[in-house]
Amino acid sequence: MAEWKNFDQLAAAGELENTGRVDLKAAMSGENGAERVKKYHIPMAEGLDYNYAAKAVDDEILEKLVKLADEAQLAEKFKELYNGAVINTGEKRLVLHHLTRGQLGDAVVADGVDKRAFYVKQQERIADFANKVHAGEIVNEKGEKFTTVVQIGIGGSDLGPRAMYLALENWAKANGTLKMTARFISNVDPDDAAQVLNSTDVAHAIFILVSKSGTTLETLTNETFVKNALVKEGLDPAKHMIAVTSETSPLAKNEGYLAAFFMDDYIGGRYSSTSAVGGAVLSLAFGPDVFAQFLEGAAAEDKIAAESDPMKNPDMLDALIGVYERNILGYEATAILPYSQALSRFPAHLQQLDMESNGKSVNRFGEPVFYPTGPVIFGEPGTNGQHSFYQLLHQGRNIIPLQFIGFRKNQCGMDDTIQGSTSQQKLCANVAAQIVAFACGRSNPDRNKNFEGGRPSSIITGEEVTPKTLGALLAHYENKVMFQGFCWNLNSFDQEGVQLGKILAKKVLAHETDGALAEYSRLLNI
Amino acid sequence: MAEWKNFDQLAAAGELENTGRVDLKAAMSGENGAERVKKYHIPMAEGLDYNYAAKAVDDEILEKLVKLADEAQLAEKFKELYNGAVINTGEKRLVLHHLTRGQLGDAVVADGVDKRAFYVKQQERIADFANKVHAGEIVNEKGEKFTTVVQIGIGGSDLGPRAMYLALENWAKANGTLKMTARFISNVDPDDAAQVLNSTDVAHAIFILVSKSGTTLETLTNETFVKNALVKEGLDPAKHMIAVTSETSPLAKNEGYLAAFFMDDYIGGRYSSTSAVGGAVLSLAFGPDVFAQFLEGAAAEDKIAAESDPMKNPDMLDALIGVYERNILGYEATAILPYSQALSRFPAHLQQLDMESNGKSVNRFGEPVFYPTGPVIFGEPGTNGQHSFYQLLHQGRNIIPLQFIGFRKNQCGMDDTIQGSTSQQKLCANVAAQIVAFACGRSNPDRNKNFEGGRPSSIITGEEVTPKTLGALLAHYENKVMFQGFCWNLNSFDQEGVQLGKILAKKVLAHETDGALAEYSRLLNI
Repeated sequence: MAEWKNFDQLAAAGELENTGRVDLKAAMSGENGAERVKKYHIPMAEGLDYNYAAKAVDDEILEKLVKLADEAQLAEKFKELYNGAVINTGEKRLVLHHLTRGQLGDAVVADGVDKRAFYVKQQERIADFANKVHAGEIVNEKGEKFTTVVQIGIGGSDLGPRAMYLALENWAKANGTLKMTARFISNVDPDDAAQVLNSTDVAHAIFILVSKSGTTLETLTNETFVKNALVKEGLDPAKHMIAVTSETSPLAKNEGYLAAFFMDDYIGGRYSSTSAVGGAVLSLAFGPDVFAQFLEGAAAEDKIAAESDPMKNPDMLDALIGVYERNILGYEATAILPYSQALSRFPAHLQQLDMESNGKSVNRFGEPVFYPTGPVIFGEPGTNGQHSFYQLLHQGRNIIPLQFIGFRKNQCGMDDTIQGSTSQQKLCANVAAQIVAFACGRSNPDRNKNFEGGRPSSIITGEEVTPKTLGALLAHYENKVMFQGFCWNLNSFDQEGVQLGKILAKKVLAHETDGALAEYSRLLNI
Repeated sequence: MAEWKNFDQLAAAGELENTGRVDLKAAMSGENGAERVKKYHIPMAEGLDYNYAAKAVDDEILEKLVKLADEAQLAEKFKELYNGAVINTGEKRLVLHHLTRGQLGDAVVADGVDKRAFYVKQQERIADFANKVHAGEIVNEKGEKFTTVVQIGIGGSDLGPRAMYLALENWAKANGTLKMTARFISNVDPDDAAQVLNSTDVAHAIFILVSKSGTTLETLTNETFVKNALVKEGLDPAKHMIAVTSETSPLAKNEGYLAAFFMDDYIGGRYSSTSAVGGAVLSLAFGPDVFAQFLEGAAAEDKIAAESDPMKNPDMLDALIGVYERNILGYEATAILPYSQALSRFPAHLQQLDMESNGKSVNRFGEPVFYPTGPVIFGEPGTNGQHSFYQLLHQGRNIIPLQFIGFRKNQCGMDDTIQGSTSQQKLCANVAAQIVAFACGRSNPDRNKNFEGGRPSSIITGEEVTPKTLGALLAHYENKVMFQGFCWNLNSFDQEGVQLGKILAKKVLAHETDGALAEYSRLLNI
């Protein structure tokens, strides 16, 4: 059994504190810099590669990080997790999202069933359903084919699947596998649902209601909103709706739905893109084969994450370097900067994944911790961000560690040579240039044009955003966040911080308010 | 003439440091909290209201903030700015974006012309052009009406206009003033342009090329990309393109464009939504009248911003409280949380506006400063964010000040009563609940379910997102950022931090690399 210690009880944490800092500017300049780029990288799955040459680490610090990983028993803890231990201590649950895409260890039996078999069965049921929809065997009331799929969900039931859909939409178009267009309704703001409904051919749309408990207020509200709109169009909602829910929820075995596919309590919303939550919408949009490739990529990265040596485990090393930056160097935020329009909403997904998992102040035993935990995560795709918030990243008063992502090929296959280079070359040239600009800076006697450098970044490179590379990329970040939670001794799998707002919102709607809450309610005319 | 001092030279800054902190939880609890909500607010333009009851301030701190405003001469500096002083010291330029929507002071003459007259003339020229397009007097080669407008621009030429378009698209549909659909191409990633072109009826599209200098690499690349696509479709680009540029750029008086509308060096990209940069696309999309209302709202807020007493000036007080949070309380980030799907990209625009303006380490004279300046800005619309990164905001180790925005009415006019309340009521109930949850917290013996509270927020409330309220909201934040720049003695109107990356990217494309840059280029196959 692994031993769970607070970060500040780890001897390696103290050693890191006492190890000399790296002068990143010096380290990355000249031939030394070139050597670092060649040396400081770890292969990932599906041809991806994690390069940390521009992070403020050296062999000595890396050695201490390896020690930290060992002392914090990161590999053992992951092993316990995938073998079915109760890692989610707050809710007393197993943590099984890895099992949706492969089995890394022992068979995991819970609720009397083999959970790997359970997830595979749901994938098969979804695949069968999607194939029938695509083949015109499951059709609307008039016997016509469905052309659009609309996901109704919020948080993890929205951000991950939406980011994955956007990441693969153009790839699927270019590869002839876009079966249905996907849309998403999430916000309880009625304008969100209204906008989607107003611009969707609802007579040919399948709606997926995603709610594990079957009780999420926003989602049920939007479902009723959609059902009312369908009825107004003379359509039967039961012929247009499927559910993704738990087997025990009121949505399961319910005649109001064409079909129900199941998730369970062992997969948190933000880790559910590879479960039925992502599976239904992505299989309907792109076909089950594409979703299977996505899972394959994730499974391949998970396998690498199970490696106990951090120097061969990019997910673990990324996590360790992030902990070093947060706890030893004291940086409060991290920017995620994909140089790929396909990944336009990937930072928003990672923002949830990371901040909801590790934005905590108590350890997994419910005891307060007094060291930094999860950072603020934000980001936008490059090159757009370069013309926006990069000013602060380059010359602001605080250092923000950066995580770049870059691909050698674009998805659409459309490109032109303009001023001697293609757009793709310009895109890649920019990300390469940014890494060096941030690390090395450039002296200028005009202080306003001076770049101090010393701003750390890593980059994940790959050939192209495909279902497989996307799966590997997603798994990388899920595993990174998990390993950081282990380092900080957190339970990264609950989210009690979202509860109080829900309770108070119910009070407002029941008009049971006093004090400031009553006044704010008046201000907002509720 | 105003005197420009560093923040740490201001006596009021020291006094603030020595003034007792507010126990926000105590202050916001019970009837005291209700009193604060009623008392701590300032009316804004167009029925908006800035409420700072849940910020960690009290009468004593407010008094010191008023002193700070006075000592830093915020009102005088704004007056110098709108009267045409060279406020952009780095580039030695006037700062005239306010003049696009009204004249607050003296006539400003530059380059031999009255600048207010110049901006109005461009608005009139755009209105005339847009009216002719809408009336079918300006048509495509086949004599057919244009139905779509596509903005090609990056950074300030993209984020602001895009956020404004999204904010008003549903309002315009509901009010019958959506004249043309707008799309946006920004990223040099060829997949961005390809995706827009693949899903746009280009034969009926007008493209707006936005580049002040006419030399922005991304924008010119995307222009050529678009032109090549048009030619492939057998269309004449010159019949589908207009330019928004400076009068001296190669794009002005150029036969390759149906028309050219002008901007100048006195309006930075991130402040250009109310100039021709926003004017062309918004006037084409919604009609010139709607754009005029948007300007009216901004002008009305600017007038309030010119008030010298911070207690009557919501833009100035918001700035001052932000400075207090950043420099005295030491918070590094700020979240922007609009409870309105219409404002989905408003946080991304404010991220640029704020981080590019004040993410600096030298003062307006080019001397280094050693106090905190602009914070990290991020955000997503509520209620979505509640199911995502709010976990960290509620229970994370660092306090992140929050800026909520809420409206009493939705735009589409579609809503349903579900479980006793409408979606709009649920939306408003949630934002009210969140403010109180963040400020007051709730004790729980289970530390994992304990909320410490003391997390400060403000809220701007309004009736509905309309052209006028949107204009006022935009101006509020522009003015806030400007006032903060004055407090920190920064030049908020240049962006030298974006230059080094550009220079290095050119080197990569010219294959003039060595060291780390050569290795990264190899990695990315350039």
